[in-house]
Amino acid sequence: MQKINLEELVAFLKEQGFVFQGSEIYGGLANAWDYGPLGVELKNNIKQAWWKKFVKQNKYNVGLDAAILMNKEVWVASGHIGSFSDPLVDCKKCHSRFRADKLIEDFTHGEITGDGMSNEQLTEFLKTNNVVCPVCGQLDYTDIRKFNLMFKTFQGVVEDAKNEVYLRPETAQGIFVNFKNVQRTTRRKLPFGIGQIGKSFRNEITPGNFIFRTREFEQMELEFFCKPGTELDWFKYWRKFCWDFLVSIGVDEKKLRYRDHDKEELSFYSNATTDIEFDFPWGFGELWGIASRTNYDLNAHQTHSGANMEYLDPDDNTKYLPYVVEPSVGVERMLLTVLFSAYDVEETKKEDGRVDTRVVLRLHPALAPYKVAVLPLIKKNHADKANEIYDMLSDKFSAVYDETANIGKRYRRQDAIGTPFTICVDDETVNNNTVTIRDRDTMEQITLPVDEVASYIESKLKF
Amino acid sequence: MQKINLEELVAFLKEQGFVFQGSEIYGGLANAWDYGPLGVELKNNIKQAWWKKFVKQNKYNVGLDAAILMNKEVWVASGHIGSFSDPLVDCKKCHSRFRADKLIEDFTHGEITGDGMSNEQLTEFLKTNNVVCPVCGQLDYTDIRKFNLMFKTFQGVVEDAKNEVYLRPETAQGIFVNFKNVQRTTRRKLPFGIGQIGKSFRNEITPGNFIFRTREFEQMELEFFCKPGTELDWFKYWRKFCWDFLVSIGVDEKKLRYRDHDKEELSFYSNATTDIEFDFPWGFGELWGIASRTNYDLNAHQTHSGANMEYLDPDDNTKYLPYVVEPSVGVERMLLTVLFSAYDVEETKKEDGRVDTRVVLRLHPALAPYKVAVLPLIKKNHADKANEIYDMLSDKFSAVYDETANIGKRYRRQDAIGTPFTICVDDETVNNNTVTIRDRDTMEQITLPVDEVASYIESKLKF
Repeated sequence: MQKINLEELVAFLKEQGFVFQGSEIYGGLANAWDYGPLGVELKNNIKQAWWKKFVKQNKYNVGLDAAILMNKEVWVASGHIGSFSDPLVDCKKCHSRFRADKLIEDFTHGEITGDGMSNEQLTEFLKTNNVVCPVCGQLDYTDIRKFNLMFKTFQGVVEDAKNEVYLRPETAQGIFVNFKNVQRTTRRKLPFGIGQIGKSFRNEITPGNFIFRTREFEQMELEFFCKPGTELDWFKYWRKFCWDFLVSIGVDEKKLRYRDHDKEELSFYSNATTDIEFDFPWGFGELWGIASRTNYDLNAHQTHSGANMEYLDPDDNTKYLPYVVEPSVGVERMLLTVLFSAYDVEETKKEDGRVDTRVVLRLHPALAPYKVAVLPLIKKNHADKANEIYDMLSDKFSAVYDETANIGKRYRRQDAIGTPFTICVDDETVNNNTVTIRDRDTMEQITLPVDEVASYIESKLKF
Repeated sequence: MQKINLEELVAFLKEQGFVFQGSEIYGGLANAWDYGPLGVELKNNIKQAWWKKFVKQNKYNVGLDAAILMNKEVWVASGHIGSFSDPLVDCKKCHSRFRADKLIEDFTHGEITGDGMSNEQLTEFLKTNNVVCPVCGQLDYTDIRKFNLMFKTFQGVVEDAKNEVYLRPETAQGIFVNFKNVQRTTRRKLPFGIGQIGKSFRNEITPGNFIFRTREFEQMELEFFCKPGTELDWFKYWRKFCWDFLVSIGVDEKKLRYRDHDKEELSFYSNATTDIEFDFPWGFGELWGIASRTNYDLNAHQTHSGANMEYLDPDDNTKYLPYVVEPSVGVERMLLTVLFSAYDVEETKKEDGRVDTRVVLRLHPALAPYKVAVLPLIKKNHADKANEIYDMLSDKFSAVYDETANIGKRYRRQDAIGTPFTICVDDETVNNNTVTIRDRDTMEQITLPVDEVASYIESKLKF
């Protein structure tokens, strides 16, 4: 398998209609991206795969969809207004702007993250270690100041403090404030979880690496509520569950690793946190965070709102605040992980010595934008029959019909966009009602009666 | 069928876990709503139904998912920065705030909408017709001023004009700016359409009627591009297509009507616009707008960005800007329409003279949050078998398992949340591997072998 770098992937995704630069005709908007016809299908399939395994088919969990705009007090209680900020420095010489913690992380090649350091510790580190400005090479920074990452806007006519609202920086708080509503209406006993998929916004100082870090992004979060004392068992359960999920949808397991947070790195309220990291072309990066958050969030909301967030345990009639385990992952990062796992360039030496190159997007069939392509071998002879088969299949699956160009070229097109099965409609189909189905990965073909095609494809979509 | 009023519906939806007040524990946020475990499933099913019929299965159309945050110039070109505003007046006596056009609309009981009136015309109308303040009864308004409905925020560290961005007030512009990207990568010929589902935001002065008008909402928009001169035929096509879609997902056709805009009401760039309206408890309200927009949007972006938005017609080698037909509908309004169509209270007089009341949510099976409920008749005898059947079915459908309370009560619970099929697992199931399936609407029961249940349910999901 050939490695692809980020630049090549971005060009490929634009070329094929997966991802375009946002507002491109106006010169774009810093690191904003739009998902084209194939990108939106792939993204929807990823979200539906998560929803299926974490919500629909999961006996423990139910779903939720809370609003992006929430009462400001939510963010006071959660601590986001007070401390959801990045340490900002400017280079006095060239006026470049940086996150001080990222300067240190890059300088130490990821050995030291600067994550938990105070402003004073960050300043000290920059000086002591001579972490010069990566742009101009000078060591002359402004003081570090805190920059809050929440986007602020005003709801209503008057732009005053009373009308301030924020775009949520995470979906999790929508779950916490609804804990009692969901528990009451579903009559659930602990343990149970609430899953949510939705947009979040962070005014990142240095977004980058394509869709890896964007200001507008989509989260898939589960808050799993359990009895205090059982949380570390559940933490282990979800830590493994998330890994298994990634493998089941075709993520390359050899590129995955767990990174357990050590005591210094843990948030003060967490008694266990692990990141599942993926080996991106620029190195390992966080894909999925699984955190045991104790009762920090429910307690904060109970204290700040005055609403009782306790659970009445019917087993022993005690009341307590549940503990929470949170697996949280971004849709765009999972998309990127899936693409880097799937993209492949096959090179085959031909008899005449030339090298034949085949681009194959080896997506799991459940994630592929199109499950099946229907190609008439010769347009004028086989188009009617092919259209009939397309109509039958598109009632069940995302299907695509293509009658342009020669058959070999059409196969290659489908390989490149990840369509797992391609059906060629020829004389045999017209005469005997059989089709040949070509497998994207092996390029092997089998012959099937037309009325067995749908169940054949369906059987391959399981994960 | 009994009519339900809005208040009763809101209470019902909260009670059952469909819709909660947003940020409820903090006293809410003006007309923001969160979707609970059943609401999110219903909403997802509505979105998937639209996507299936308008994008996936539609030969003409493809999908897109553009970012909410776009370059500010998009909104200059589209006219939103210049004129996407409401006419605001305050009552000088009691300081209540109103939309002047809405004052007139309410005063004339919808006879005159005030939609196309200038500030001067609105002021004149209020005076001449003695449209007094609905709160204090005085006629003493401030001058009318324009209030722009876009939420503004700042991207980046500095809050200056250069960093201003807006939350999109409609998803449509994300489609227009990507027209060429999509056309090029899909190699589509006209006519073709681009569909999109996503959040939009409008800083409404008077949101209200529950989820009918909210500041944060979700749109399902199709922009259909066609050759100039063919647009009125396509307008008629989509006008009918949208109506048929509503009927196919179970919306009460008797409560629907078309309202064609007359010449005075049409936007200056439109040569035909129709609203499909639904008879809500507070009267007919707009559900779906279908507008023939000529080449207004593509032309505006071509002029403002300098990018060529023309289409090269391979049939006659001419270049031109396509004309556009736009069917645009809100997810929340469709949800409300579906709920008002489905909610029913059945009253049956019993032999003893008492009246038996049954709440039934007659949702189309494709939209129902759960397709099937599995109920063991007696927990200790039938739970194992029931769980086995639940596992089999939940691999294919949203299913729910309920072993609490007596069987009659459990049936009624499922009726109220719209589950179309309920399976009772009893001795017959354990001994003969057959189950009885109860139909939500008719309450009739049929007996089926266990291995035929899935295909039976599947056949009922078609629409």
